[in-house]
Amino acid sequence: MQVGMIGLGKMGLNLTYNVMEQGHKAIVFDVNPIAVKEAVKAGAVGTASLEELIQSLKAPRVIWMMVPAGELTEQVIQQTSAMLENGDILIDGGNSNYKDTIRRAEQLSLKGIYFLDVGTSGGTSGARLGACTMIGGNKTAFAAVEQLFKDICVKNGYLHAGESGSGHFLKMVHNGVEYGMMQAIAEGFELLEKSAYDFDFERVARVWNNGSVIRSWLMELTENAFAKDAHLDGLKGVMHSSGEGKWTLETALDLQTATPVIALSLLMRYRSLEEDTFSGKVVAALRNEFGGHSVERS
Amino acid sequence: MQVGMIGLGKMGLNLTYNVMEQGHKAIVFDVNPIAVKEAVKAGAVGTASLEELIQSLKAPRVIWMMVPAGELTEQVIQQTSAMLENGDILIDGGNSNYKDTIRRAEQLSLKGIYFLDVGTSGGTSGARLGACTMIGGNKTAFAAVEQLFKDICVKNGYLHAGESGSGHFLKMVHNGVEYGMMQAIAEGFELLEKSAYDFDFERVARVWNNGSVIRSWLMELTENAFAKDAHLDGLKGVMHSSGEGKWTLETALDLQTATPVIALSLLMRYRSLEEDTFSGKVVAALRNEFGGHSVERS
Repeated sequence: MQVGMIGLGKMGLNLTYNVMEQGHKAIVFDVNPIAVKEAVKAGAVGTASLEELIQSLKAPRVIWMMVPAGELTEQVIQQTSAMLENGDILIDGGNSNYKDTIRRAEQLSLKGIYFLDVGTSGGTSGARLGACTMIGGNKTAFAAVEQLFKDICVKNGYLHAGESGSGHFLKMVHNGVEYGMMQAIAEGFELLEKSAYDFDFERVARVWNNGSVIRSWLMELTENAFAKDAHLDGLKGVMHSSGEGKWTLETALDLQTATPVIALSLLMRYRSLEEDTFSGKVVAALRNEFGGHSVERS
Repeated sequence: MQVGMIGLGKMGLNLTYNVMEQGHKAIVFDVNPIAVKEAVKAGAVGTASLEELIQSLKAPRVIWMMVPAGELTEQVIQQTSAMLENGDILIDGGNSNYKDTIRRAEQLSLKGIYFLDVGTSGGTSGARLGACTMIGGNKTAFAAVEQLFKDICVKNGYLHAGESGSGHFLKMVHNGVEYGMMQAIAEGFELLEKSAYDFDFERVARVWNNGSVIRSWLMELTENAFAKDAHLDGLKGVMHSSGEGKWTLETALDLQTATPVIALSLLMRYRSLEEDTFSGKVVAALRNEFGGHSVERS
């Protein structure tokens, strides 16, 4: 199959290698010409613009976008769709909000362009060696490119989940679950760290990875992290987030669903971004006001 | 090695099979003679009392207790230790509270009896086919029975974690992490269930088990559960707990450690035990009092 790849960042470049290794032909574009050169070295056909990419592809085109979600994805879809034709298939493999995806799929369908939303999991190693994909959108369009998913994913690692947005919705919830699982693991190790015992965290993670109920890929990554830095002394506990946890919680609010673990996982990330908090000052001030409890001065 | 097994419930019986399959000799006792007969059928030497069990074992004895935590474990340790001799090794493989374990190890050490605390994970299938064990207590005693752990556990599935109590402490925290991971997975599926999409939960769990970041044994169990009952219609969402989550939270309070995910996972279990709540009535009453908001009458 001939695939146009737009976006050759960490995920996009690894996916391109994966696609080519599976015998498909990749025609690529990225705003960064160095990334295009990397892909060309590995056998891709490089192009210097979206126009050139689209002209180089035979109709009906299959284009996989791996572009940061939000404004950039919106721009690329607008620019690309203006040049696409009836029957072309545009795939958004990024972490787009499923509400944007539903809107985009409707707009594109007016022009006869198929839009598939693909949640891609497994990190960069998965993108390179075998991904996990959750796919939403038109069934016929999916059937036309199913072989591509079969080839680039691990066994049983792709699912056509339903209509437009369902792929990105599943990926969003997957990430919400991921937040909760990570925070649960993290709280466990914090308890071990604060305990009177002198645990070897790498060995604890290893034993938990072998035969225990909580064995998981995340625990394997935990083991790797402690193998590199036994007490993670080289890191600060600042936990950034890139939006999917927030969307999961917003969705939980829309659906009036009690998801305290996902909620608190997200809020603990926000707390970690602050050295001190205004809420902390307020509580300290109030304890001082009513009970004369001592405060720490800044 | 010759091992005395006390307690032949779901875990103890499977461990006994495992121990014997690895070429060790099991001499067993349980208050339930039917369980003893089961073990005997598989090649164990059955006994009719703790006294007989202890007399049947060659000194220095190795005794593995697999008895419900709390009062029963306390009784068995009291009765057994009265008959044990200097150099014998008593292993508590149950889910005892690590504070009890520390106390017991101290008491037993006065008599020269070694006490090893073993957190056992992996469920009944793990007990049968390859467990995961976290071991606390005297290093010399551990070294004397290490081969046993090596044999009955999966590869890399045992760890001497430190001094007395550290095995049960690790198992307790393991279970706290398990609560959090399970609740995170559960909240994710509740969002899928409440969404406008018509997801096939078994297929979702399967794709998440193949290549995704949240692939895990718990997600495999989730897949199994949905394979048996596509919407879990046959179950009520009542989530019992057996103490380890509570102890983890109590430990977090003792150590003044912020563990909101483990805490909320436990509190959501308690909430699930109630059809209605008094706190709900209070909030409904207050909304009615200040704003005239309607209430639902019981």
